[in-house]
Amino acid sequence: MKASAPRPTRRKTAAKAPGRVPDGGGRVTIEAVWPEVDGGRAAAKRVVGDIVTVTADIFTDGHEKVAADILYRLDSARDWLRAPMRLLENDRWGGSFRVEENAAYRYTIEAWRDPYASWREEVEKKRAAGQDVTLEIAEGVHLAQRASTAPALSPTAQALLDDLAARLDTLADAEAQWALLSSGEAATLMAAHGERAHLTRYDRELPLWVDRPAARFSAWYELFPRSASNDPGRHGTFDDVIARLPYVRDLGFDVLYFPPIHPIGTTNRKGKNNNLKPAPGDPGSVYAIGSPEGGHDAIHPELGTLDDFRRLVAAAHEHGLEIALDFAINCSPDHPWIKAHPEWFDWRPDGTIKFAENPPKKYEDIVNVHFYGEALPSIWYALRDAVLFWVDAGVRIFRVDNPHTKPLPFWAWLIAEVNDRDPGVIFLAEAFTRPKMMKKLAKIGYQQSYTYFTWRNTKSELVDYVTELAGEMGEYYRPNFFANTPDINPLFLQTSGRAGFVARATLAATLSSSWGIYNGFELCEATPLPGREEYLDSEKYEIKAWDFDREGNIRDHVAALNRIRRENAALTDFRNVKFLNAWNDNVLAYLRMTPAKDNALLILVNLDPHNVQTADYEVPLWEFGVPDHGWIDAEDLILGIRFTLNGKIHRITLDPDDRPVMIWRLIPPG
Amino acid sequence: MKASAPRPTRRKTAAKAPGRVPDGGGRVTIEAVWPEVDGGRAAAKRVVGDIVTVTADIFTDGHEKVAADILYRLDSARDWLRAPMRLLENDRWGGSFRVEENAAYRYTIEAWRDPYASWREEVEKKRAAGQDVTLEIAEGVHLAQRASTAPALSPTAQALLDDLAARLDTLADAEAQWALLSSGEAATLMAAHGERAHLTRYDRELPLWVDRPAARFSAWYELFPRSASNDPGRHGTFDDVIARLPYVRDLGFDVLYFPPIHPIGTTNRKGKNNNLKPAPGDPGSVYAIGSPEGGHDAIHPELGTLDDFRRLVAAAHEHGLEIALDFAINCSPDHPWIKAHPEWFDWRPDGTIKFAENPPKKYEDIVNVHFYGEALPSIWYALRDAVLFWVDAGVRIFRVDNPHTKPLPFWAWLIAEVNDRDPGVIFLAEAFTRPKMMKKLAKIGYQQSYTYFTWRNTKSELVDYVTELAGEMGEYYRPNFFANTPDINPLFLQTSGRAGFVARATLAATLSSSWGIYNGFELCEATPLPGREEYLDSEKYEIKAWDFDREGNIRDHVAALNRIRRENAALTDFRNVKFLNAWNDNVLAYLRMTPAKDNALLILVNLDPHNVQTADYEVPLWEFGVPDHGWIDAEDLILGIRFTLNGKIHRITLDPDDRPVMIWRLIPPG
Repeated sequence: MKASAPRPTRRKTAAKAPGRVPDGGGRVTIEAVWPEVDGGRAAAKRVVGDIVTVTADIFTDGHEKVAADILYRLDSARDWLRAPMRLLENDRWGGSFRVEENAAYRYTIEAWRDPYASWREEVEKKRAAGQDVTLEIAEGVHLAQRASTAPALSPTAQALLDDLAARLDTLADAEAQWALLSSGEAATLMAAHGERAHLTRYDRELPLWVDRPAARFSAWYELFPRSASNDPGRHGTFDDVIARLPYVRDLGFDVLYFPPIHPIGTTNRKGKNNNLKPAPGDPGSVYAIGSPEGGHDAIHPELGTLDDFRRLVAAAHEHGLEIALDFAINCSPDHPWIKAHPEWFDWRPDGTIKFAENPPKKYEDIVNVHFYGEALPSIWYALRDAVLFWVDAGVRIFRVDNPHTKPLPFWAWLIAEVNDRDPGVIFLAEAFTRPKMMKKLAKIGYQQSYTYFTWRNTKSELVDYVTELAGEMGEYYRPNFFANTPDINPLFLQTSGRAGFVARATLAATLSSSWGIYNGFELCEATPLPGREEYLDSEKYEIKAWDFDREGNIRDHVAALNRIRRENAALTDFRNVKFLNAWNDNVLAYLRMTPAKDNALLILVNLDPHNVQTADYEVPLWEFGVPDHGWIDAEDLILGIRFTLNGKIHRITLDPDDRPVMIWRLIPPG
Repeated sequence: MKASAPRPTRRKTAAKAPGRVPDGGGRVTIEAVWPEVDGGRAAAKRVVGDIVTVTADIFTDGHEKVAADILYRLDSARDWLRAPMRLLENDRWGGSFRVEENAAYRYTIEAWRDPYASWREEVEKKRAAGQDVTLEIAEGVHLAQRASTAPALSPTAQALLDDLAARLDTLADAEAQWALLSSGEAATLMAAHGERAHLTRYDRELPLWVDRPAARFSAWYELFPRSASNDPGRHGTFDDVIARLPYVRDLGFDVLYFPPIHPIGTTNRKGKNNNLKPAPGDPGSVYAIGSPEGGHDAIHPELGTLDDFRRLVAAAHEHGLEIALDFAINCSPDHPWIKAHPEWFDWRPDGTIKFAENPPKKYEDIVNVHFYGEALPSIWYALRDAVLFWVDAGVRIFRVDNPHTKPLPFWAWLIAEVNDRDPGVIFLAEAFTRPKMMKKLAKIGYQQSYTYFTWRNTKSELVDYVTELAGEMGEYYRPNFFANTPDINPLFLQTSGRAGFVARATLAATLSSSWGIYNGFELCEATPLPGREEYLDSEKYEIKAWDFDREGNIRDHVAALNRIRRENAALTDFRNVKFLNAWNDNVLAYLRMTPAKDNALLILVNLDPHNVQTADYEVPLWEFGVPDHGWIDAEDLILGIRFTLNGKIHRITLDPDDRPVMIWRLIPPG
């Protein structure tokens, strides 16, 4: 290295050139605003009734005091509402407001230098140091007088400020003026109407999307309506589903979700276990949508009619259940769209239609639409209208199949279009793909998302994943922890036995505010296609009968979980999980607690379904101001018994054959 | 909690409403671009010759392959240059380009779906699975033909594509077509000229500021010119400073920095040790700028003339030194501006000028200007022109006094104005204040910044702080580790003795790429004002004589440090510090290494100046692919001896009275 020797200057122009004219703007800095998803390109998400907290770094030069407001409004409203911010620490400011509508909001921040507060602090410091402040008080009187001459004051403010100025005028000595000027009355008046010097608005208006609460808090149960007869020899109907509603209600679920209910194609129909050679009478995959009987806005005739479906929706509502439908854009080769709109499909050089594939895998019973070229915008409208058709039929939740294989701008547009018409419609993204795509689907509008939960089994995996979900991701990505799906028969459950089902249901229901199971889970069904993460004799390809009373089922535990979820506000948000020390890698201990600490659950789960595990663990006494040697009452929410925990460190033994999980409500003293 | 019962829909309009017309844009996602400081509001900083690496998350729906380029240009240029990006992992892409000019740049990203690459991967997978690909090859031929009919091809590209299409035409069988289409030649041609489907440009053009290398790599020495006579009875002159240049050069410094050299006021002049009652002949604080003899563009007459100053600048250049001046906006009450521009100052209700203060502290010998009201823009221009005056006199580095007490928009404007005229002018922010303000000054343009280094003494403090500086902050904030200043006589050094000076100089010179000392440090001067972090008999208020040969000085060590810095490229950037395991909290071990690993230093520092410390530590063999039981050669850069380190774990003993620090160059095998 040579010394960085000075180089000759390369001045473009001499000094005294006019240069840019400074306008002085930006004296108060507002930055690092949170939430701000992707620099304001994506909306933060909340639900109706939430308190939205906004924080930012706010500061200015010198010693002058600053003040700040959050400005917020419904996106459709013109005027901003205001919520004051206060200094938290180290130039970080925060404030909050409540959202009451299922709608789009916007927010931003205003900050300014506060001459009155600055003046008051200066005089207080000088008085404390015994300095003469006569001139400073005269400066304060001047501040108050100037406030009364500001333009556009309300009549009330004008009267109050005039009164203050007049009273200051009549006071002879500075001490009396100080007493008045530093009073709470003057401080309130000056904070509201005093000069807001160097008023600065944050340069972005940030989007906020507020959903109805079900977008964050829901318990899902998935079944195939065609199996609802519980007789493999008879195709189920919507009426059979109606007959099953009490069962689902008794399990405590909120959402009853159906895979596609549309007519199924016959060309290349799949047989049992995804067999390319179906037997006569095999019903085919429900995802091969479309036949001469109709496509995405039609009902498979054997299930019933649209009126039957509407009756089912109404009956579900009566049972406290909401129906969710699958939205899968696959078409069977028999879908009416293929003849009506060949421009929506891909055709080979030999004139044949291109089947769906993920080379070298082929999906012979479906074709994909495409979204560009001659299909833009007609297919976009057709798909939106298919969704709106079911919205008209009373469906307000859609589970979207494989959204990551369709264009992101399509989903952004579709969800906005549907939510413009009904902001209460919720879309769940069934994307099991690379993490950034999963996040992006949430950013562009999906209100709820499938997750990697089924593949997170160890303590460190669960801690890491839940921590990630609750962090920055939690602003826009709402997890739904499905414990199984028709496509996923988790390896863990294939060998875990009942204890594993109890543990995984507990984790799903209490580590996320939304969870779900596909029927059979409550029966501890886990027979796999050998060596695969799939179910043997998958219900996707055949009509199944289930023995819902079968021995060893965990229906009572599932019902208890859903009851506990409804009775404990701490479980309504997924972002409040705090993991606790438990000195055994097979025991997961965590606290779920509301921000107000008025509901707090301590949960202990044995992650090892095969062995008794014992762990020392910490009861989070510190959260309630209880010393380490203090005590706290607790209620076992499964057994209903109450007891007291003395001291911070305790030992628990969790037996897979008896009680592999504990859910305790903590009841702080007083 | 009640169940979230479905609520009645609140649809605004029925289905089939026209809604928004989709345009299909945004199919390729480009996000999380880095560097992007504050969402693109602030420039990332580099120096001439740097390789700038840009990364981003880039992905699209489905299985289609994407490709991407960085687009970059001088801010003053019209056309973009391109640098290709490649997939790093997990949808993260990266590329790089070299910056050659001391100027403003911009960069952004383009990405697209690559039909040719996607087609090729698809066919390869199917061929590997033994599937018939005749139709797929026909589709590939079609892709190549379509490329040749694209508009606006260069004549060369047109000829090559026509040739490819013609050759494909003559080939009878699909296998031969595949061989040609999958050849490197065709791949190169199609990558350059094939369809770029769904071409997407990142929505921001990000700013990048490229400085001359001294902005990041510099060694500063501070002295008071008026003390350069080395005779407290005689005011030093610029000629005295010229006589001291060999001393500073022999210590190896690059930058010679002077506190203000302007006329000093007499009103309320400070005496020795900040005394309010000066003795006759006391020279006053150099920061009380301005007298009837002139202000910010004048020289204190006892120092010499402007011509003398120019001679000094030239002489410094001949010694490989660059002069840095202080820019302090304080005015003495005698500054000519006060009479000429009363509108630039604050006046009390009694008609007196308002002195500078930080209540309850008062600074009786200075007044502050203000920047708004009638002072905007005239004071802005006057201050800019004062800086440009010294730029004209050959000064290209300014150390700015207390910038955090002046408006941020003023600095942003001033630095841009000066750099418009000479992009090589460097501003160092002397802000010791709250962290967010210090960062903000760097974001708005300061090329270099003082730091908290003088207050970071323990191992954990140093590791945390250096790690913070090298992280996201390192994109815009360039630390200058001053080991002391006229204002800061660090508590650590007041009791550390010589070993502490050796350790702190070593840390400053090798943990940051810029460092500095104020004269006296090399003499281990640390006599404090009792109980204060200041020097007794501060040179700020009096003319001092120093015995530069005094016993126990560390001149040789300082010279060695600066020599080592020049000879080792690893020390030219502050962002490459890797801390190493050393199992003793009093021993700091770290690696400094170039990205190419062609220069690597292992540095060991005893942080305890009073006791011998022994530590086991790790030699980072893994960085060079050497196994834990392997060996690496090393050179002691202070003693000049070579030796071999066998194995990963070693033990070192560092004796404060002998050698408290080690600086070794690692020489990997081969």
